Amino acid sequence: MQESFLHQIGQALRSRREELGMTQEEAAQRLGMHRTYYSSIERGLKDVRIKTLRRICEKLDVRMRTVVGKAEQ
Amino acid sequence: MQESFLHQIGQALRSRREELGMTQEEAAQRLGMHRTYYSSIERGLKDVRIKTLRRICEKLDVRMRTVVGKAEQ
Repeated sequence: MQESFLHQIGQALRSRREELGMTQEEAAQRLGMHRTYYSSIERGLKDVRIKTLRRICEKLDVRMRTVVGKAEQ
Repeated sequence: MQESFLHQIGQALRSRREELGMTQEEAAQRLGMHRTYYSSIERGLKDVRIKTLRRICEKLDVRMRTVVGKAEQ
């Protein structure tokens, strides 16, 4: 259940990034993260901290409540 | 700015807990956390992981999107 919540968060981030026409490479670069690390977040494999999720949302120009809301659906 | 975001998250958790008439002690107990640790989350001093915030929201019977939404206002 919580596993799946991280997956939903990751999915929401991925679809927002794709909406922007941004590659994982570009997103990772903006965040100063390694692409494989960023990719593992989108795949729901990383239980990141609040500030990290917030920073990702900022770089993807989306509100965190929107991402969390999609994950909770 | 990100510091203050954690403070806003903490405030939102605190007001929800108070709405329930729950003490920090009770909330911490339900979460299996030490009271001082739980207290430091409400004071915005801990950058907890997504699953931890989700678990706190579940114990406080509130949606995480609501807590995040209040913090983003």
